[in-house]
Amino acid sequence: MKEILAEIITIGDEILFGHITDTNSQWISDELSKAGVRIIQKTSVGDDARRIREALSEAEQRVQIILITGGLGPTNDDITKKTLAGYFNSPLILNKQALEDVTAFFKKKGKELSDLNKTQALLPEACIYIRNEMGTAPGMWFDKKDKVIVSMPGVPFEMKAMTTGRIIPMLKEKFNPAFIVHKEVKTVGIGESYLSEKIKDWEEKLPSYIKLAYLPSYGEVKLRLTASGKDQVRLKKEIEEQINLLQKIAGNYIYGYDQDTLPKVVGEMLREQKITIATAESCTGGLISYFITSIPGSSDYFHGGLVAYSNEIKQNILGVKPETLNQFGAVSEETVKEMAEGAKTKFHTGIGLASSGIAGPGGGTSEKPVGTVWLALADNKKTIAKKLSLGNDREINMRLAAVAVLNLLRETLTEKS
Amino acid sequence: MKEILAEIITIGDEILFGHITDTNSQWISDELSKAGVRIIQKTSVGDDARRIREALSEAEQRVQIILITGGLGPTNDDITKKTLAGYFNSPLILNKQALEDVTAFFKKKGKELSDLNKTQALLPEACIYIRNEMGTAPGMWFDKKDKVIVSMPGVPFEMKAMTTGRIIPMLKEKFNPAFIVHKEVKTVGIGESYLSEKIKDWEEKLPSYIKLAYLPSYGEVKLRLTASGKDQVRLKKEIEEQINLLQKIAGNYIYGYDQDTLPKVVGEMLREQKITIATAESCTGGLISYFITSIPGSSDYFHGGLVAYSNEIKQNILGVKPETLNQFGAVSEETVKEMAEGAKTKFHTGIGLASSGIAGPGGGTSEKPVGTVWLALADNKKTIAKKLSLGNDREINMRLAAVAVLNLLRETLTEKS
Repeated sequence: MKEILAEIITIGDEILFGHITDTNSQWISDELSKAGVRIIQKTSVGDDARRIREALSEAEQRVQIILITGGLGPTNDDITKKTLAGYFNSPLILNKQALEDVTAFFKKKGKELSDLNKTQALLPEACIYIRNEMGTAPGMWFDKKDKVIVSMPGVPFEMKAMTTGRIIPMLKEKFNPAFIVHKEVKTVGIGESYLSEKIKDWEEKLPSYIKLAYLPSYGEVKLRLTASGKDQVRLKKEIEEQINLLQKIAGNYIYGYDQDTLPKVVGEMLREQKITIATAESCTGGLISYFITSIPGSSDYFHGGLVAYSNEIKQNILGVKPETLNQFGAVSEETVKEMAEGAKTKFHTGIGLASSGIAGPGGGTSEKPVGTVWLALADNKKTIAKKLSLGNDREINMRLAAVAVLNLLRETLTEKS
Repeated sequence: MKEILAEIITIGDEILFGHITDTNSQWISDELSKAGVRIIQKTSVGDDARRIREALSEAEQRVQIILITGGLGPTNDDITKKTLAGYFNSPLILNKQALEDVTAFFKKKGKELSDLNKTQALLPEACIYIRNEMGTAPGMWFDKKDKVIVSMPGVPFEMKAMTTGRIIPMLKEKFNPAFIVHKEVKTVGIGESYLSEKIKDWEEKLPSYIKLAYLPSYGEVKLRLTASGKDQVRLKKEIEEQINLLQKIAGNYIYGYDQDTLPKVVGEMLREQKITIATAESCTGGLISYFITSIPGSSDYFHGGLVAYSNEIKQNILGVKPETLNQFGAVSEETVKEMAEGAKTKFHTGIGLASSGIAGPGGGTSEKPVGTVWLALADNKKTIAKKLSLGNDREINMRLAAVAVLNLLRETLTEKS
């Protein structure tokens, strides 16, 4: 079966100058791989017509699919559209559907369409118009014999909606790539190298047409299994069987699959078990409740949370005893347990979660260095606490602590069920 | 003065498959820009000899400096060194200094040098050996007439030490590049196209050696000015003068420069004016307080926050009147104002911030569609509110609302100062 090859071209001076990280091309690579398309090159060029043209004609020598992002804004420094019009020798004309869409977009926001924004409806005659559901810069699809060149906006959420909603379905229809079956196994509470040792024997016995990748991120490790071949049903069955084996070895670290996220999974468990929760946060500063409320419908089980930065608030609103704070300090097992219990009582919920720690970079002592974090969970039967010893990076510490407390919740809910 | 042009080539299947984000090339771009070298392209290819050779020969057509990272490990899948030896038609020979260095590196770690690691001292005869202070894979510098090709390891901290310590000084000596001065102007509260119309005249009058780029993200737009030339002092002065002009036109949208972030800037204003704050969040779910507490030392001015998801909490802890909730609903000007006032009172602060809205994707009505968000700020003199009409994406709505309320705080603090 012939491979379908693709290249990603990202356009924008801001990427070349190193002012932003290009996360778009990673995301696109990932999605296209899943769709059975193989990326063989990524190219970044500036907002420079000659460079864009050269990158396009070089890419045409290599691949069937060229995906371009960026340079589609209404301002003068964005020249991708003009350059494509020239490259395809196709004049810019007003696209009626694009004008309707951009007008509706501004109307919904209660704003008048400016002349500048009207120019976004001008598109090269040769292209198929791709609606931007999330913004005003349209996408463009150019068929060129057996090849396709697609241009999308660089704003990540606009590009993502367009890729998932239109581009990948259109590419699948045109190129009919080999079946690739992906399954992601989401784990939490175990580091990459420990997980790797734990599942070593299983990994070595995987059939050759199933590949395994480790994708670590804040406190989590995703395992991605990828199988390719002609028989989709068989591939899916084989992946399911391998995952059943994996469950037996590392089941307690697995919280979900594919689109599952930790806040989503614990949310579903809470809803199913009819348990409500509340949070009392110190070092995580609101991140735990933000994670929980990022899930639509979370108001069904989340009553509320308190960010208790000062000791006064910990005492007055959460009811932490002054003696506890005096004797053990704010960052201690005793305080964090009282915080969790206080959240449960104050918000009238079944479970209270709490965090207290030194996120850094300052504020550490020899006894309690930066990165010391206490987490707690209180329910109707017991209050448990857990200590983390993290590093010096404030943002990473806040994230790791929030993920760890959600995992504590997951483990407790798993026991209950 | 002639510009010195460079291209970065990153090598590795893991980048193409989307398994890791390429942060190396962003870092190199930034460092080289500061050194006066202009990056005109970035290219990522897999561990594939033909692709590497093609990328090299294409890059040689464009630039004087080619910086390669990755593919230098001792295992079989890393082929950069062999490929370079072939490309330069230069046999791999044992480099005595490299062998001494790699032996010393292992000795320092208390380990024996394996045969596999010994092969790392084999280098193409034509290259200048570049010591790796942080690891075992050496760097290689190839002079080719007036061009330079440099190969470095892909491990970020090894590559960074090599770039800063050896490569940039060697490049400066060989090419003696022009100065490049960058300045970023950070704006909030105005969309890209409106900002662009507002500063059109100023933009058109910019001298030709100063370039302007618009970099939009959630609720903010960064303006980046880039000047290049021989006289660094004059460039800096000219940029300052242009920014002074810009201040007069769009000053109220400018919150800071370069490394400034909105939470950092409002934090500094609060600290300076000795004002404390608290939050009462509904639709933002903790994101406002997370933004505020992401800044080290924020406990100096942030007392705490309440995430009040249920009406019961809004009444019992924040003191929102039941009549207000009944008559106007949770998402209303009246309720959000009482929430801000409640936060201020409950947490004993100078200012209270509040959010209440329908983040989506569900929960909208014809009267209050998804994306309807009310924000409020209460201080000792007054309580103000602001309504946003956002889209359907929960995450984006939460972010835009949090940025908008921080901007409301910034505007209030600016008036006070």
